[in-house]
Amino acid sequence: VAAGIAKGPTLTPLDEATCRRLMATAAIGRVGLSIDALPVVLPVGFVVDGDRVLFRTGEGLKLRQALEGAVVCFQVDDVDPIRHTGWSVLVTGHARALRDPDDLARVRRLPLRPWAPVDGDHHVAITIELVSGRGLGDVA
Amino acid sequence: VAAGIAKGPTLTPLDEATCRRLMATAAIGRVGLSIDALPVVLPVGFVVDGDRVLFRTGEGLKLRQALEGAVVCFQVDDVDPIRHTGWSVLVTGHARALRDPDDLARVRRLPLRPWAPVDGDHHVAITIELVSGRGLGDVA
Repeated sequence: VAAGIAKGPTLTPLDEATCRRLMATAAIGRVGLSIDALPVVLPVGFVVDGDRVLFRTGEGLKLRQALEGAVVCFQVDDVDPIRHTGWSVLVTGHARALRDPDDLARVRRLPLRPWAPVDGDHHVAITIELVSGRGLGDVA
Repeated sequence: VAAGIAKGPTLTPLDEATCRRLMATAAIGRVGLSIDALPVVLPVGFVVDGDRVLFRTGEGLKLRQALEGAVVCFQVDDVDPIRHTGWSVLVTGHARALRDPDDLARVRRLPLRPWAPVDGDHHVAITIELVSGRGLGDVA
């Protein structure tokens, strides 16, 4: 490489297919949203179902209301802080509680587990409307 | 315990001292903010310096502007999706670029590394104004 001093692996944008493939390898992601105009990030267990990211929450009414119809983000990464390798994918889209009985019945058969036990069984879908990602080194 | 059917470990709130101690054990956290009114979550290498979370970014002007003076959140977790154990800590506070030369000189001696190589050397501090956390099982 003639570009000059070696600086190690470079942070490069990932195409959408790669983002979707990498996302599917993770079990935990983070939902980013606003509650009372303050940014909040919550870890969730999730599953990708077509054009939706699905997760469960049993948490408070305030969270449910903040999610309903809002544009939220969903972020997944796999970062090695020692080797400085890894990737991060960010999805943006509308969140909505699942209510259709047929849809819920199908979703309940997916391998979707919250990371924490929850009292409720509130399923939320984030429509995958925008996807972007960045990777360091070989993320294939 | 007389409370009924055993449901495994319970998600419990963590006190602030525990939150701060757990945060210091992690190398990577996620900053949650809004850019052009859309929620964004970014992984960052960080260090806690007193009442500030410090991280570096070399990324675009848009991100720098979105961070400057904004109320953002910073989230750290250590989650085991198989064993359903772990914790998550959320800090909320104002973000601001470090500009004071003495402060910058001191911060540059801290073990603060970005997870990805960055072109710039833009140090950002989030003031720890609100701290909350939740844990599953024994997080001591």
